[in-house]
Amino acid sequence: MAGSSAASNSFAPIGRSEVERIVRQVALEYLAKGNNIAAPVLTVQASSRHMHVCREDLDTLFGPGTELTFDRPLFQEGNFAAKETVTIVGPRSRLISNLRILGPMRKQSQVELAFTDAIMLGFNDLPVRLSGDIAGTPGAVIIGPKGVVELKQGVIRAAIHVHMNPAEAAHFGVSKGDRMNLRIGGDAGLTFNNVHVRIDDKARLNVHMDTDEANACGLHLTKDIELYK
Amino acid sequence: MAGSSAASNSFAPIGRSEVERIVRQVALEYLAKGNNIAAPVLTVQASSRHMHVCREDLDTLFGPGTELTFDRPLFQEGNFAAKETVTIVGPRSRLISNLRILGPMRKQSQVELAFTDAIMLGFNDLPVRLSGDIAGTPGAVIIGPKGVVELKQGVIRAAIHVHMNPAEAAHFGVSKGDRMNLRIGGDAGLTFNNVHVRIDDKARLNVHMDTDEANACGLHLTKDIELYK
Repeated sequence: MAGSSAASNSFAPIGRSEVERIVRQVALEYLAKGNNIAAPVLTVQASSRHMHVCREDLDTLFGPGTELTFDRPLFQEGNFAAKETVTIVGPRSRLISNLRILGPMRKQSQVELAFTDAIMLGFNDLPVRLSGDIAGTPGAVIIGPKGVVELKQGVIRAAIHVHMNPAEAAHFGVSKGDRMNLRIGGDAGLTFNNVHVRIDDKARLNVHMDTDEANACGLHLTKDIELYK
Repeated sequence: MAGSSAASNSFAPIGRSEVERIVRQVALEYLAKGNNIAAPVLTVQASSRHMHVCREDLDTLFGPGTELTFDRPLFQEGNFAAKETVTIVGPRSRLISNLRILGPMRKQSQVELAFTDAIMLGFNDLPVRLSGDIAGTPGAVIIGPKGVVELKQGVIRAAIHVHMNPAEAAHFGVSKGDRMNLRIGGDAGLTFNNVHVRIDDKARLNVHMDTDEANACGLHLTKDIELYK
Protein backbone atom coordinates (compact mmCIF):
# COMPACT_ATOMS: atom_id res chain seq x y z
CA MET A 1 0.00 0.00 0.00
CA ALA A 2 2.74 2.44 0.94
CA GLY A 3 4.54 1.48 -2.26
CA SER A 4 1.64 2.12 -4.58
CA SER A 5 0.83 5.36 -2.80
CA ALA A 6 4.38 6.64 -3.24
CA ALA A 7 4.30 5.69 -6.91
CA SER A 8 1.09 7.56 -7.62
CA ASN A 9 2.29 10.59 -5.68
CA SER A 10 5.40 10.86 -7.77
CA PHE A 11 3.29 11.72 -10.82
CA ALA A 12 0.81 13.96 -9.00
CA PRO A 13 1.12 17.76 -9.07
CA ILE A 14 2.59 19.21 -5.89
CA GLY A 15 -0.28 20.00 -3.50
CA ARG A 16 -0.68 23.28 -1.68
CA SER A 17 0.24 21.81 1.67
CA GLU A 18 3.46 20.47 0.21
CA VAL A 19 4.27 23.85 -1.31
CA GLU A 20 3.56 25.49 2.05
CA ARG A 21 5.77 23.00 3.81
CA ILE A 22 8.67 23.67 1.47
CA VAL A 23 8.23 27.44 1.64
CA ARG A 24 8.06 27.27 5.42
CA GLN A 25 11.21 25.17 5.59
CA VAL A 26 13.12 27.45 3.22
CA ALA A 27 11.92 30.54 5.10
CA LEU A 28 12.98 29.06 8.43
CA GLU A 29 16.40 28.16 7.06
CA TYR A 30 16.74 31.64 5.56
CA LEU A 31 15.79 33.29 8.85
CA ALA A 32 18.19 31.03 10.71
CA LYS A 33 21.01 32.06 8.34
CA GLY A 34 20.15 35.72 8.69
CA ASN A 35 20.36 35.41 12.47
CA ASN A 36 23.47 33.31 12.12
CA ILE A 37 21.89 30.57 14.24
CA ALA A 38 20.93 27.06 13.26
CA ALA A 39 17.28 26.02 13.21
CA PRO A 40 16.52 24.28 16.52
CA VAL A 41 16.51 20.50 16.48
CA LEU A 42 13.16 19.04 17.46
CA THR A 43 12.76 15.86 19.44
CA VAL A 44 9.36 14.27 20.01
CA GLN A 45 8.80 11.87 22.87
CA ALA A 46 5.98 9.64 24.01
CA SER A 47 5.32 9.59 27.74
CA SER A 48 3.84 6.44 29.19
CA ARG A 49 1.40 6.75 32.07
CA HIS A 50 3.16 7.99 35.21
CA MET A 51 2.76 9.76 38.53
CA HIS A 52 4.22 12.91 40.07
CA VAL A 53 4.22 12.85 43.84
CA CYS A 54 4.23 15.44 46.66
CA ARG A 55 6.21 15.15 49.91
CA GLU A 56 3.22 14.16 52.01
CA ASP A 57 2.04 11.42 49.65
CA LEU A 58 5.57 10.05 49.19
CA ASP A 59 5.80 9.76 53.01
CA THR A 60 2.53 7.83 53.13
CA LEU A 61 3.25 5.57 50.17
CA PHE A 62 6.92 4.75 50.85
CA GLY A 63 7.48 5.72 54.49
CA PRO A 64 8.35 9.05 56.19
CA GLY A 65 11.37 10.86 54.78
CA THR A 66 11.70 8.67 51.68
CA GLU A 67 13.56 10.27 48.78
CA LEU A 68 12.95 9.22 45.19
CA THR A 69 15.65 6.95 43.77
CA PHE A 70 17.15 8.04 40.45
CA ASP A 71 16.65 5.44 37.72
CA ARG A 72 17.26 7.27 34.43
CA PRO A 73 17.33 10.87 33.23
CA LEU A 74 14.51 12.40 31.18
CA PHE A 75 15.10 14.81 28.32
CA GLN A 76 14.31 17.96 30.31
CA GLU A 77 17.23 18.71 32.63
CA GLY A 78 16.63 17.75 36.26
CA ASN A 79 13.71 15.44 35.49
CA PHE A 80 14.12 11.73 35.98
CA ALA A 81 12.31 8.41 36.12
CA ALA A 82 12.46 7.08 39.67
CA LYS A 83 12.84 3.44 40.64
CA GLU A 84 9.67 3.77 42.75
CA THR A 85 6.38 2.56 41.32
CA VAL A 86 2.83 2.46 42.71
CA THR A 87 -0.50 0.86 41.90
CA ILE A 88 -3.53 2.92 40.87
CA VAL A 89 -7.08 1.70 41.43
CA GLY A 90 -9.78 3.32 39.32
CA PRO A 91 -13.57 3.67 39.55
CA ARG A 92 -14.23 0.28 37.97
CA SER A 93 -12.14 -1.41 40.70
CA ARG A 94 -9.59 -2.33 38.11
CA LEU A 95 -5.97 -1.46 38.67
CA ILE A 96 -2.72 -0.71 36.91
CA SER A 97 0.42 -1.74 38.75
CA ASN A 98 4.00 -0.63 38.13
CA LEU A 99 2.90 2.98 37.60
CA ARG A 100 6.25 4.78 37.42
CA ILE A 101 6.93 7.88 39.56
CA LEU A 102 8.78 10.71 37.82
CA GLY A 103 10.99 13.04 39.83
CA PRO A 104 11.67 15.49 41.25
CA MET A 105 8.92 15.80 43.85
CA ARG A 106 6.17 18.31 43.17
CA LYS A 107 3.83 20.44 45.24
CA GLN A 108 0.84 18.37 44.20
CA SER A 109 0.52 14.71 43.32
CA GLN A 110 -0.73 14.04 39.80
CA VAL A 111 -1.33 10.98 37.64
CA GLU A 112 -1.07 11.20 33.84
CA LEU A 113 -2.89 8.47 31.92
CA ALA A 114 -3.56 7.84 28.26
CA PHE A 115 -7.27 7.47 27.44
CA THR A 116 -6.61 3.77 26.76
CA ASP A 117 -5.49 3.40 30.39
CA ALA A 118 -8.20 5.71 31.68
CA ILE A 119 -11.10 3.94 29.97
CA MET A 120 -9.83 0.55 31.17
CA LEU A 121 -9.75 1.91 34.74
CA GLY A 122 -13.21 3.46 34.40
CA PHE A 123 -12.36 7.16 33.94
CA ASN A 124 -14.65 7.65 30.96
CA ASP A 125 -14.20 11.36 30.34
CA LEU A 126 -10.90 12.23 31.92
CA PRO A 127 -10.08 15.94 31.46
CA VAL A 128 -7.31 16.87 29.03
CA ARG A 129 -5.08 19.23 31.03
CA LEU A 130 -1.64 20.72 31.13
CA SER A 131 0.49 19.40 33.96
CA GLY A 132 -0.29 21.19 37.25
CA ASP A 133 -3.78 22.30 36.18
CA ILE A 134 -5.71 19.74 38.20
CA ALA A 135 -8.60 21.65 39.80
CA GLY A 136 -11.81 19.67 39.37
CA THR A 137 -10.14 16.55 37.98
CA PRO A 138 -10.97 13.08 39.34
CA GLY A 139 -9.03 11.35 42.08
CA ALA A 140 -7.98 7.74 42.59
CA VAL A 141 -6.66 5.33 45.16
CA ILE A 142 -2.86 4.97 45.02
CA ILE A 143 -1.19 2.04 46.72
CA GLY A 144 2.47 2.03 47.72
CA PRO A 145 4.56 -0.49 49.67
CA LYS A 146 4.04 1.37 52.96
CA GLY A 147 0.60 2.89 52.64
CA VAL A 148 -2.40 4.02 50.65
CA VAL A 149 -3.29 7.54 49.49
CA GLU A 150 -6.74 8.55 48.35
CA LEU A 151 -6.08 11.36 45.89
CA LYS A 152 -9.00 13.79 45.89
CA GLN A 153 -8.02 15.05 42.45
CA GLY A 154 -5.08 14.96 40.06
CA VAL A 155 -5.82 12.27 37.48
CA ILE A 156 -5.55 13.78 34.00
CA ARG A 157 -4.86 12.98 30.41
CA ALA A 158 -1.91 15.27 29.69
CA ALA A 159 -2.44 17.71 26.82
CA ILE A 160 0.18 17.41 24.08
CA HIS A 161 2.72 20.20 24.58
CA VAL A 162 6.07 21.51 23.44
CA HIS A 163 8.82 22.69 25.78
CA MET A 164 11.10 25.42 24.48
CA ASN A 165 13.36 28.21 25.67
CA PRO A 166 12.72 31.89 24.85
CA ALA A 167 15.15 31.86 21.88
CA GLU A 168 13.34 28.91 20.37
CA ALA A 169 9.99 30.61 21.00
CA ALA A 170 11.29 33.65 19.13
CA HIS A 171 12.44 31.41 16.27
CA PHE A 172 8.92 29.99 15.90
CA GLY A 173 7.22 33.31 16.66
CA VAL A 174 5.16 31.89 19.52
CA SER A 175 4.37 32.85 23.10
CA LYS A 176 3.39 30.95 26.22
CA GLY A 177 -0.12 29.53 25.85
CA ASP A 178 -0.08 29.53 22.06
CA ARG A 179 -0.94 26.35 20.27
CA MET A 180 1.14 24.98 17.44
CA ASN A 181 0.73 22.25 14.84
CA LEU A 182 2.81 19.10 14.75
CA ARG A 183 2.62 17.21 11.48
CA ILE A 184 3.67 13.57 11.52
CA GLY A 185 4.23 11.93 8.14
CA GLY A 186 4.17 8.28 7.13
CA ASP A 187 1.41 5.75 6.56
CA ALA A 188 -0.40 6.72 9.76
CA GLY A 189 0.38 10.40 9.43
CA LEU A 190 -1.70 13.09 11.10
CA THR A 191 -1.41 16.64 12.38
CA PHE A 192 -1.79 17.56 16.03
CA ASN A 193 -3.48 20.97 15.99
CA ASN A 194 -3.36 21.80 19.71
CA VAL A 195 0.27 21.53 20.78
CA HIS A 196 0.49 23.82 23.82
CA VAL A 197 3.57 26.02 24.04
CA ARG A 198 5.43 25.96 27.37
CA ILE A 199 8.41 28.28 27.66
CA ASP A 200 11.15 28.01 30.24
CA ASP A 201 14.69 29.43 30.31
CA LYS A 202 16.20 26.00 30.88
CA ALA A 203 13.92 24.05 28.55
CA ARG A 204 15.22 21.96 25.66
CA LEU A 205 13.01 21.90 22.58
CA ASN A 206 10.83 18.85 22.64
CA VAL A 207 7.27 17.72 22.23
CA HIS A 208 5.63 15.47 24.79
CA MET A 209 2.75 13.31 23.66
CA ASP A 210 1.20 10.29 25.32
CA THR A 211 1.22 6.68 24.18
CA ASP A 212 -2.20 6.88 22.50
CA GLU A 213 -1.02 9.81 20.43
CA ALA A 214 2.29 8.13 19.59
CA ASN A 215 0.52 4.93 18.61
CA ALA A 216 -2.17 6.71 16.60
CA CYS A 217 0.41 8.46 14.42
CA GLY A 218 2.94 5.62 14.32
CA LEU A 219 5.63 7.85 15.83
CA HIS A 220 8.02 4.88 15.82
CA LEU A 221 7.60 4.49 12.05
CA THR A 222 8.63 7.89 10.72
CA LYS A 223 11.16 10.70 10.98
CA ASP A 224 9.05 13.03 8.84
CA ILE A 225 8.04 15.43 11.60
CA GLU A 226 7.37 19.16 11.44
CA LEU A 227 6.42 21.70 14.11
CA TYR A 228 4.88 24.96 12.94
CA LYS A 229 2.75 27.82 14.14
CA MET B 1 -7.77 25.40 30.18
CA ALA B 2 -10.42 25.00 27.49
CA GLY B 3 -12.17 28.05 28.95
CA SER B 4 -9.20 30.36 28.81
CA SER B 5 -8.34 29.24 25.31
CA ALA B 6 -11.87 29.95 24.09
CA ALA B 7 -11.70 33.38 25.72
CA SER B 8 -8.46 34.34 24.04
CA ASN B 9 -9.64 33.02 20.67
CA SER B 10 -12.72 35.20 20.75
CA PHE B 11 -10.53 38.29 20.46
CA ALA B 12 -8.10 36.84 17.95
CA PRO B 13 -8.40 37.51 14.20
CA ILE B 14 -9.93 34.62 12.26
CA GLY B 15 -7.13 32.37 11.07
CA ARG B 16 -6.75 31.13 7.53
CA SER B 17 -7.71 27.59 8.44
CA GLU B 18 -10.91 28.84 10.04
CA VAL B 19 -11.73 30.91 6.96
CA GLU B 20 -11.07 27.86 4.80
CA ARG B 21 -13.29 25.74 6.98
CA ILE B 22 -16.18 28.20 6.72
CA VAL B 23 -15.77 28.65 2.97
CA ARG B 24 -15.65 24.91 2.52
CA GLN B 25 -18.80 24.43 4.59
CA VAL B 26 -20.68 27.16 2.76
CA ALA B 27 -19.54 25.80 -0.60
CA LEU B 28 -20.63 22.29 0.32
CA GLU B 29 -24.02 23.53 1.47
CA TYR B 30 -24.36 25.59 -1.70
CA LEU B 31 -23.47 22.62 -3.90
CA ALA B 32 -25.88 20.44 -1.97
CA LYS B 33 -28.68 22.97 -2.56
CA GLY B 34 -27.84 23.23 -6.24
CA ASN B 35 -28.10 19.45 -6.53
CA ASN B 36 -31.22 19.50 -4.41
CA ILE B 37 -29.69 16.93 -2.07
CA ALA B 38 -28.74 17.27 1.56
CA ALA B 39 -25.07 17.09 2.56
CA PRO B 40 -24.34 13.53 3.62
CA VAL B 41 -24.32 12.84 7.35
CA LEU B 42 -20.96 11.62 8.58
CA THR B 43 -20.52 9.06 11.31
CA VAL B 44 -17.12 8.20 12.75
CA GLN B 45 -16.56 4.93 14.54
CA ALA B 46 -13.73 3.39 16.50
CA SER B 47 -13.04 -0.28 15.82
CA SER B 48 -11.53 -2.31 18.63
CA ARG B 49 -9.09 -5.06 17.74
CA HIS B 50 -10.86 -7.90 15.94
CA MET B 51 -10.44 -10.81 13.56
CA HIS B 52 -11.93 -11.73 10.18
CA VAL B 53 -11.92 -15.43 9.49
CA CYS B 54 -11.94 -17.70 6.42
CA ARG B 55 -13.92 -20.93 6.08
CA GLU B 56 -10.92 -23.18 6.64
CA ASP B 57 -9.73 -21.39 9.78
CA LEU B 58 -13.25 -21.22 11.22
CA ASP B 59 -13.48 -24.99 10.77
CA THR B 60 -10.20 -25.50 12.60
CA LEU B 61 -10.90 -23.03 15.42
CA PHE B 62 -14.57 -23.88 16.11
CA GLY B 63 -15.12 -27.27 14.45
CA PRO B 64 -16.03 -28.29 10.87
CA GLY B 65 -19.05 -26.55 9.37
CA THR B 66 -19.38 -23.95 12.13
CA GLU B 67 -21.25 -20.79 11.13
CA LEU B 68 -20.63 -17.46 12.85
CA THR B 69 -23.33 -16.55 15.37
CA PHE B 70 -24.83 -13.07 14.95
CA ASP B 71 -24.33 -10.90 18.04
CA ARG B 72 -24.96 -7.34 16.88
CA PRO B 73 -25.04 -5.46 13.56
CA LEU B 74 -22.25 -3.14 12.45
CA PHE B 75 -22.84 0.13 10.63
CA GLN B 76 -22.09 -1.20 7.15
CA GLU B 77 -25.00 -3.35 6.01
CA GLY B 78 -24.38 -7.09 6.24
CA ASN B 79 -21.44 -6.77 8.62
CA PHE B 80 -21.83 -7.96 12.19
CA ALA B 81 -20.01 -8.75 15.40
CA ALA B 82 -20.15 -12.48 16.02
CA LYS B 83 -20.48 -14.14 19.39
CA GLU B 84 -17.33 -16.14 18.64
CA THR B 85 -14.02 -14.96 20.10
CA VAL B 86 -10.48 -16.33 19.90
CA THR B 87 -7.14 -15.84 21.62
CA ILE B 88 -4.13 -14.41 19.77
CA VAL B 89 -0.57 -15.18 20.84
CA GLY B 90 2.11 -12.78 19.66
CA PRO B 91 5.89 -12.93 19.26
CA ARG B 92 6.56 -12.03 22.90
CA SER B 93 4.50 -15.06 24.02
CA ARG B 94 1.95 -12.70 25.43
CA LEU B 95 -1.66 -13.10 24.49
CA ILE B 96 -4.94 -11.24 24.10
CA SER B 97 -8.04 -13.26 24.78
CA ASN B 98 -11.63 -12.45 23.82
CA LEU B 99 -10.56 -11.22 20.40
CA ARG B 100 -13.92 -10.72 18.66
CA ILE B 101 -14.60 -12.20 15.22
CA LEU B 102 -16.48 -9.95 12.80
CA GLY B 103 -18.71 -11.49 10.14
CA PRO B 104 -19.40 -12.40 7.45
CA MET B 105 -16.63 -14.88 6.63
CA ARG B 106 -13.91 -13.71 4.27
CA LYS B 107 -11.60 -15.34 1.78
CA GLN B 108 -8.57 -14.70 4.00
CA SER B 109 -8.23 -14.55 7.76
CA GLN B 110 -6.98 -11.22 9.08
CA VAL B 111 -6.38 -9.69 12.51
CA GLU B 112 -6.64 -5.93 13.03
CA LEU B 113 -4.81 -4.57 16.07
CA ALA B 114 -4.16 -1.09 17.39
CA PHE B 115 -0.45 -0.35 17.91
CA THR B 116 -1.09 -0.40 21.68
CA ASP B 117 -2.20 -4.04 21.34
CA ALA B 118 0.50 -4.85 18.80
CA ILE B 119 3.39 -3.50 20.87
CA MET B 120 2.15 -5.33 23.95
CA LEU B 121 2.07 -8.57 21.93
CA GLY B 122 5.53 -7.91 20.46
CA PHE B 123 4.67 -6.75 16.93
CA ASN B 124 6.93 -3.73 17.01
CA ASP B 125 6.47 -2.40 13.50
CA LEU B 126 3.17 -3.81 12.36
CA PRO B 127 2.35 -2.64 8.81
CA VAL B 128 -0.44 -0.09 8.37
CA ARG B 129 -2.68 -1.61 5.69
CA LEU B 130 -6.13 -1.41 4.21
CA SER B 131 -8.24 -4.45 4.97
CA GLY B 132 -7.47 -7.31 2.59
CA ASP B 133 -3.99 -6.05 1.67
CA ILE B 134 -2.05 -8.53 3.78
CA ALA B 135 0.84 -9.71 1.58
CA GLY B 136 4.05 -9.68 3.60
CA THR B 137 2.41 -8.92 6.94
CA PRO B 138 3.25 -10.92 10.07
CA GLY B 139 1.33 -13.94 11.25
CA ALA B 140 0.29 -15.15 14.69
CA VAL B 141 -1.00 -18.15 16.56
CA ILE B 142 -4.79 -18.08 16.96
CA ILE B 143 -6.45 -20.35 19.52
CA GLY B 144 -10.11 -21.31 19.36
CA PRO B 145 -12.17 -23.73 21.46
CA LYS B 146 -11.65 -26.60 19.01
CA GLY B 147 -8.24 -25.97 17.54
CA VAL B 148 -5.24 -23.80 16.80
CA VAL B 149 -4.36 -21.97 13.58
CA GLU B 150 -0.93 -20.65 12.79
CA LEU B 151 -1.61 -17.69 10.51
CA LYS B 152 1.30 -17.21 8.11
CA GLN B 153 0.31 -13.58 7.55
CA GLY B 154 -2.65 -11.28 8.12
CA VAL B 155 -1.89 -9.27 11.26
CA ILE B 156 -2.18 -5.56 10.44
CA ARG B 157 -2.86 -2.19 11.94
CA ALA B 158 -5.83 -1.06 9.83
CA ALA B 159 -5.33 2.23 7.99
CA ILE B 160 -7.95 4.85 8.83
CA HIS B 161 -10.50 4.89 6.00
CA VAL B 162 -13.87 6.23 4.96
CA HIS B 163 -16.62 4.16 3.36
CA MET B 164 -18.92 5.96 0.95
CA ASN B 165 -21.18 5.31 -2.01
CA PRO B 166 -20.56 6.82 -5.47
CA ALA B 167 -22.99 9.72 -4.86
CA GLU B 168 -21.16 10.65 -1.66
CA ALA B 169 -17.83 10.37 -3.47
CA ALA B 170 -19.17 12.78 -6.09
CA HIS B 171 -20.29 15.14 -3.33
CA PHE B 172 -16.77 15.25 -1.89
CA GLY B 173 -15.10 15.15 -5.31
CA VAL B 174 -13.01 12.10 -4.47
CA SER B 175 -12.22 8.77 -6.12
CA LYS B 176 -11.23 5.34 -4.87
CA GLY B 177 -7.72 5.43 -3.41
CA ASP B 178 -7.75 9.16 -2.67
CA ARG B 179 -6.87 10.31 0.80
CA MET B 180 -8.97 12.82 2.70
CA ASN B 181 -8.55 14.85 5.87
CA LEU B 182 -10.61 14.32 9.00
CA ARG B 183 -10.43 17.18 11.49
CA ILE B 184 -11.46 16.41 15.05
CA GLY B 185 -12.04 19.41 17.31
CA GLY B 186 -11.97 19.67 21.08
CA ASP B 187 -9.19 19.76 23.66
CA ALA B 188 -7.37 16.82 22.09
CA GLY B 189 -8.18 17.86 18.54
CA LEU B 190 -6.11 16.75 15.58
CA THR B 191 -6.40 16.18 11.84
CA PHE B 192 -6.00 12.77 10.24
CA ASN B 193 -4.33 13.48 6.89
CA ASN B 194 -4.43 10.00 5.36
CA VAL B 195 -8.06 8.88 5.43
CA HIS B 196 -8.29 6.35 2.60
CA VAL B 197 -11.38 6.53 0.41
CA ARG B 198 -13.24 3.25 -0.17
CA ILE B 199 -16.23 3.40 -2.50
CA ASP B 200 -18.96 0.79 -2.71
CA ASP B 201 -22.52 1.00 -4.09
CA LYS B 202 -24.02 -0.22 -0.84
CA ALA B 203 -21.72 1.70 1.52
CA ARG B 204 -23.00 4.13 4.14
CA LEU B 205 -20.80 7.15 4.77
CA ASN B 206 -18.62 6.51 7.76
CA VAL B 207 -15.04 6.70 8.92
CA HIS B 208 -13.40 3.75 10.63
CA MET B 209 -10.50 4.46 12.94
CA ASP B 210 -8.93 2.24 15.58
CA THR B 211 -8.95 2.68 19.34
CA ASP B 212 -5.54 4.37 19.46
CA GLU B 213 -6.72 6.97 16.99
CA ALA B 214 -10.03 7.45 18.81
CA ASN B 215 -8.26 7.80 22.14
CA ALA B 216 -5.59 10.12 20.77
CA CYS B 217 -8.18 12.60 19.48
CA GLY B 218 -10.69 12.13 22.29
CA LEU B 219 -13.38 11.07 19.83
CA HIS B 220 -15.76 10.50 22.76
CA LEU B 221 -15.36 14.13 23.85
CA THR B 222 -16.40 16.07 20.78
CA LYS B 223 -18.95 16.36 17.98
CA ASP B 224 -16.85 18.91 16.10
CA ILE B 225 -15.82 16.68 13.22
CA GLU B 226 -15.19 17.57 9.59
CA LEU B 227 -14.22 15.43 6.58
CA TYR B 228 -12.72 17.23 3.60
CA LYS B 229 -10.61 16.60 0.54
